[in-house]
Amino acid sequence: MTGPDRAVRVAVLGCGVVGTEVVRLLTSQSADLAARVGAPLELVGVAVRDLTTPRDAVVDPALLTIDAQGLVDRADVVVEVMGGIEPARTLLLRAIAGRAAVVTANKALLGLDGPTLYTAADAAGVDLYFEAAVAGAIPLVRPVRESLAGDRVTRVLGIVNGTTNYVLDQMASTGLELAQAVKQAQALGYAEADPTADVEGFDAAAKAAILASLAFHTRVSVDDVHREGINGVSAQDVEAAAETGYVIKLLAIAERLPEVDGAAGGVVVRVHPSLVPQAHPLAGVRGAFNAVFVEAEAAGELMFYGRGAGGRPTASAVLGDVVTVARHRVQGGKGPIESRYADLPLHGIGEATTRYQIRLRVADRPGVLAQVARVFAAHDVSIEVVRQSPTAAGGGATDLLVVTHVARDAALSATVSELSGLDVVDAVLSVLRVEGA
Amino acid sequence: MTGPDRAVRVAVLGCGVVGTEVVRLLTSQSADLAARVGAPLELVGVAVRDLTTPRDAVVDPALLTIDAQGLVDRADVVVEVMGGIEPARTLLLRAIAGRAAVVTANKALLGLDGPTLYTAADAAGVDLYFEAAVAGAIPLVRPVRESLAGDRVTRVLGIVNGTTNYVLDQMASTGLELAQAVKQAQALGYAEADPTADVEGFDAAAKAAILASLAFHTRVSVDDVHREGINGVSAQDVEAAAETGYVIKLLAIAERLPEVDGAAGGVVVRVHPSLVPQAHPLAGVRGAFNAVFVEAEAAGELMFYGRGAGGRPTASAVLGDVVTVARHRVQGGKGPIESRYADLPLHGIGEATTRYQIRLRVADRPGVLAQVARVFAAHDVSIEVVRQSPTAAGGGATDLLVVTHVARDAALSATVSELSGLDVVDAVLSVLRVEGA
Repeated sequence: MTGPDRAVRVAVLGCGVVGTEVVRLLTSQSADLAARVGAPLELVGVAVRDLTTPRDAVVDPALLTIDAQGLVDRADVVVEVMGGIEPARTLLLRAIAGRAAVVTANKALLGLDGPTLYTAADAAGVDLYFEAAVAGAIPLVRPVRESLAGDRVTRVLGIVNGTTNYVLDQMASTGLELAQAVKQAQALGYAEADPTADVEGFDAAAKAAILASLAFHTRVSVDDVHREGINGVSAQDVEAAAETGYVIKLLAIAERLPEVDGAAGGVVVRVHPSLVPQAHPLAGVRGAFNAVFVEAEAAGELMFYGRGAGGRPTASAVLGDVVTVARHRVQGGKGPIESRYADLPLHGIGEATTRYQIRLRVADRPGVLAQVARVFAAHDVSIEVVRQSPTAAGGGATDLLVVTHVARDAALSATVSELSGLDVVDAVLSVLRVEGA
Repeated sequence: MTGPDRAVRVAVLGCGVVGTEVVRLLTSQSADLAARVGAPLELVGVAVRDLTTPRDAVVDPALLTIDAQGLVDRADVVVEVMGGIEPARTLLLRAIAGRAAVVTANKALLGLDGPTLYTAADAAGVDLYFEAAVAGAIPLVRPVRESLAGDRVTRVLGIVNGTTNYVLDQMASTGLELAQAVKQAQALGYAEADPTADVEGFDAAAKAAILASLAFHTRVSVDDVHREGINGVSAQDVEAAAETGYVIKLLAIAERLPEVDGAAGGVVVRVHPSLVPQAHPLAGVRGAFNAVFVEAEAAGELMFYGRGAGGRPTASAVLGDVVTVARHRVQGGKGPIESRYADLPLHGIGEATTRYQIRLRVADRPGVLAQVARVFAAHDVSIEVVRQSPTAAGGGATDLLVVTHVARDAALSATVSELSGLDVVDAVLSVLRVEGA
């Protein structure tokens, strides 16, 4: 314990958009923070790569240092908002070894190698908090890790990447193709110069891994997450979705499969573009906002909504954690340790079950529908509705829209694969999972 | 510390709907709970008023006792789900004096006399948790108290009473008058035999007081809350709201007034029926669900949604708290203490500012509108729109609908009072605050 007399020394690693806002809150709210912690928070330094980069005036140049290691060694609480795997990992492990409490917003690191950090923190008996790593300002880690600790989570489903949500939104409202919508998002600062992490779903997959680990008390790495980005989504897909009463959203989904013969069901974690009914609350989540549904056996359905990114919202989440771990320093105590006792088996996407919408271009002649239906039936995939496009596609072809009942993903894949080989099927135009219906 | 070897002894006070579900979760999830806590939870007894009342089979009759005091003395963690002021308060104070951690779902007690409990718990250095006291299963207390501890909350606004929400919903969808809708809710078990606490807004006011205390680091009692129930809401009000694009919701609102000359703004806490635009997310909150918006300076707007009542959802919130306080017993540490350092001044409803919709029955003759408008202007209340009903009300009268810009509540009251005295005003049909627009 630090004791109430002495200030709690806080080091900030990184001074980008989030780091700057963390410094701003630490400075502007210092009296409030001291009252909440029970001792003043003293900002002892801000580690940066380059001392000559121009900074916001709120950052006192005297606090800047390129000696991140030396800074870490002088801190009671280390706030990591630099991002990336290295040197973030090494610095956090050094902080933990020196018995500093750690607050990080680094989803990529936690998604890839969280267990190394969790294990080190638990062994050293120090706090490791990371509310800001998932869904920005939205309190989600603390509710799942603490508020629902007496319940059993069955599913987490939500929009956790604001960039792709903005891009899909723009495609829906303007009819733009993906590449154009991404360029626009870049011009407005909503997408990075290299949009890969967002567009290909890596960011969402890291967050899904973190949430799944907490929700199911099981270690889930980003490598365990089935990941499909939005790069395959065309303007035509977006338009077709609208025509059938859906919007396309990139969803992160972590769910527990039902028990089989009394044995615990496994866990499937997936990130992919999904059709969401227009009336569903997730359909109305616009731009850079995030929204996450959490379903638990006793609590039922919960929804959390707010800003998923941005300097100030992310800094708010970071500071909430800083207050908690600093309070532990002053008043004693420690937050929850990693909970992975359940150790549920992780399954691939093949075991997931959901509904599907498939668009096919087929020969426009009698008997085709029967052939198509037979393939679905052969794989035990039950059809809810088939609709033939009112206008022929030309060249003696027509378009079919098939919506299935709930089916296993593996069965659906096999169905689609067999459909592609049928003489009467010119092309499988799109296959999209339907969620929230 | 109890240490990891010994079970944590849990006493449950009350065995109604919530108590029964707490017992069910403690029993059915005992292995999970033990893993999460780090030691088994041992249910040492359930205090009831009458041993002969028939109980759910999950409750072991051998655990029942009418000696609540004796039970409290044998527990490490006391769970209070009996409700009401006494004997709950005395039992919780006894538990605290005996250094047991306390988990309560008792909003009436906390809203009325929370400070007595907070002070006792802080003095004894024991945990006092109460997630279930506000918005049932929705994690709201922990996010406001902990996640937003590094931010500055400016406003909390939401639907926190499921019974009135259900009743207003029924009135809107069926055209029923309030009394009939309440009877229906009672028949379905959504309202108590004596619906006063819900219908007159006492329950919502208690929750508003608890949330305001946490959000503003200031002691707010239910007596500080301006409270109007739904008892004055007529079928005609509901119909008129729908015609103008609104739904009527009972909202709990706690907000910080802007700073004046550098001095902290005060706090106004109010519960009253409100017009909410049909497109607002709160308008879509149906039946027994709750939804709460929290606005903070850095985090921006957050929304929390879920089941606000019911045995299982409430028990989920209780168990989350039980796991946290039991973990503190086993692994050391303690949750946050009461934070009331800000001690902001509390203001009455007169200082609140919002928009208003006023319906007036006036004489149907030239010059009336000018007279009415003059009264608004005299009180500095700016009119956004005035609409005259297309059909005369009969007897030479017609109805006017006035929507104001944001105005001080005191100014609006004075306006309405002066309007009532005008010769040309037959009646002020309704005055409703407009929120979320």
